[in-house]
Amino acid sequence: MTLQAEMLQIGKQARAASRTLARATTNQKNNVLEEIARQLDQQREQLLIANNKDLAAGKDKGLDSALLDRLALNDARIVGMIEGLQQIASLSDPIGEITDLKYQPSGIRVGKMRVPLGVVGIIYESRPNVTADAAALCLKSGNATILRGGSEAINSNQAIAKCIGAGLQAAGLPSDAVQVIATTDRAAVGELIRMAEYVDVIIPRGGKGLIERVSNEARVPVIKHLDGICHTFIDDKADFAKAIEVAFNAKTQRYGTCNTMETLLVAKDIAATILPPLAEKYIKVGVELRGCVATQAILANIKLATEEDWQTEYLAPILSIRVVEDMDAAIQHISQYSSQHTDVIITEDWSRAMRFLTEVDSSSVMVNASSRFADGFEYGLGAEIGISTDKFHARGPVGLEGLTSQKFVVLGDGHIRQ
Amino acid sequence: MTLQAEMLQIGKQARAASRTLARATTNQKNNVLEEIARQLDQQREQLLIANNKDLAAGKDKGLDSALLDRLALNDARIVGMIEGLQQIASLSDPIGEITDLKYQPSGIRVGKMRVPLGVVGIIYESRPNVTADAAALCLKSGNATILRGGSEAINSNQAIAKCIGAGLQAAGLPSDAVQVIATTDRAAVGELIRMAEYVDVIIPRGGKGLIERVSNEARVPVIKHLDGICHTFIDDKADFAKAIEVAFNAKTQRYGTCNTMETLLVAKDIAATILPPLAEKYIKVGVELRGCVATQAILANIKLATEEDWQTEYLAPILSIRVVEDMDAAIQHISQYSSQHTDVIITEDWSRAMRFLTEVDSSSVMVNASSRFADGFEYGLGAEIGISTDKFHARGPVGLEGLTSQKFVVLGDGHIRQ
Repeated sequence: MTLQAEMLQIGKQARAASRTLARATTNQKNNVLEEIARQLDQQREQLLIANNKDLAAGKDKGLDSALLDRLALNDARIVGMIEGLQQIASLSDPIGEITDLKYQPSGIRVGKMRVPLGVVGIIYESRPNVTADAAALCLKSGNATILRGGSEAINSNQAIAKCIGAGLQAAGLPSDAVQVIATTDRAAVGELIRMAEYVDVIIPRGGKGLIERVSNEARVPVIKHLDGICHTFIDDKADFAKAIEVAFNAKTQRYGTCNTMETLLVAKDIAATILPPLAEKYIKVGVELRGCVATQAILANIKLATEEDWQTEYLAPILSIRVVEDMDAAIQHISQYSSQHTDVIITEDWSRAMRFLTEVDSSSVMVNASSRFADGFEYGLGAEIGISTDKFHARGPVGLEGLTSQKFVVLGDGHIRQ
Repeated sequence: MTLQAEMLQIGKQARAASRTLARATTNQKNNVLEEIARQLDQQREQLLIANNKDLAAGKDKGLDSALLDRLALNDARIVGMIEGLQQIASLSDPIGEITDLKYQPSGIRVGKMRVPLGVVGIIYESRPNVTADAAALCLKSGNATILRGGSEAINSNQAIAKCIGAGLQAAGLPSDAVQVIATTDRAAVGELIRMAEYVDVIIPRGGKGLIERVSNEARVPVIKHLDGICHTFIDDKADFAKAIEVAFNAKTQRYGTCNTMETLLVAKDIAATILPPLAEKYIKVGVELRGCVATQAILANIKLATEEDWQTEYLAPILSIRVVEDMDAAIQHISQYSSQHTDVIITEDWSRAMRFLTEVDSSSVMVNASSRFADGFEYGLGAEIGISTDKFHARGPVGLEGLTSQKFVVLGDGHIRQ
């Protein structure tokens, strides 16, 4: 069979399984998640053996240590997958919810029923735990899934796939509800993202290169997550203690995450007062500061921030700082350089807080809180399949609801249109 | 300037105007709609002169009478546009609504704020009134618009564009908030649907050819409306009087609309009882019936329905009829042939009604009501920009809400992530 024929068959099987899943009861869906968790628990040894094969191959190929770390499974990570499955089982089922059911002048009642999207394709890189997490979120939201992991994790992913398959079988749901692509041929991705008849949405999880490739070539809608160039603006009406705590946390709580602050904007009237104590805290933990000319006039010995700095997601202990005239100038900077992921104002001024919330066009806009909160768990979504930097369909952290759609339901009693 | 440069400039202007529109107050938006209505009222004569040019050119080009009718403006249609604008002004403003604002365990409050999509591109065919309607819906939902009408309506559309421009000026909103493309060069559409940086969504309104071209070539998300192959299933537990009324209305209330029934499915146990009186009603008003072999055995002298009939949106007084074993067979037929627009069951049986509502995967699913109700006005949306047969983002009739997105807002008081 050609690769194209093989992928089409996977697509057709997923579409057929999605019909069964769409009408699965909440109990059936929770059972399958618990069965998969049980399988992962029983198969720990097999998972570690498979993972060791991947790690050995990765070392032979000269993968760097960060990549090898992401690829590695161990007891704690297996427990993490198991707990993730149990947690998703405990979330309430979004499917079937009917909202806004109202009488219309004609006498019919019209409402919206939440339904699965159908078939979700997920393309991801080295972390094998994504296989279990993504499958669980899609199953709970009544979607069939086609998973395509990174080639360096192929053995780990196939071992996890076996557990998922066994769980589906034990719960009496079709095994095609979750299909993990077994070939490492890159052309499989090209086929997957073009099968508009069989795939309803593609979610790429990984580096910018992967996401841009998928976005450019897909014939299927994509929920994508590009850069996180997040800003914190300290207004001249900010409470200083809060400002210092929040700005420090936003940069330093973790460096490599998309919701980490990359640029700090400070109102000029307070820059000379607040920047020195804040800079001292950053420098103490090893954060490199780069600033505009006005920042350099306050903080001696820091590098000049260039145009490129404002456009960079460092994902590292580096922070660019710009002194701005006022909130309008801050919003102007944000509208020019922000990746529309998460932007924050620190202020005690009511009107400015309201204007910032309204006028900043980012997937999360915050007042007096650290950008590090932009996360499905912190938002109470229970779990997240990714963070969307798109506006269409889903924006910001995407939980179960982002994997659903709504159809109209009309209840009549023989009503006809006049 | 090249066409590409011209379109990019239009895109940039739209993006800039969208920022102003996004923070326009409800009053400003309503004022502009009322100003545009006033301009249309004052410029009736100019509108009719421009429209006469288009009609004369259309006759010279040999357009058929249906197309010329769609192209024509007259006093009643101008009044229709004016009333449409006033009605959209009277709808409540979706923008800025904050929902689900809840405390999270960390102490932050997280909610969702409804925001405009940004820039909406609309591509449509001959009806010039779409220019005013589409502009009004986009303005009310805080979006900038780029409108591209059919070349045969170019003079009418430009005359309406002048009224919109004057209305925007009078209300103090940027004139680039609504741009009506002045060139009839078809390549302009190709540019418009690829400017992902400046256009957030494309809505094509017109024939299948247009929609397929746009879907295939777009690099921007598309809200599309393909066929309406709608079904009505008369269950053996149906109330006969309701079944006959609803099935007759669904086919005959209007023939050329997407929510008109094209295929009638009848449970075999009642087919011989219900089909003869129903057929008599259809034949009386000139509907041509085509049926499966079982239908032919009940209704003499009707044509055999072929495989092609089940796949056809007639948009004409033709109805295909199939006798099916039971509801499962009806759902099977629908899942195979429905365009997932609107499908209906007529039954008095609670369990079957519930199963049909859950299991039929169409943008509208109805119990005991005519499919002709599938419409933004009948659903209480106040207006509609189109009917989406997609699942992603918006499904079914799309009103103001379908032109919006939601961003997360986070309210803290110096909260940091632990």
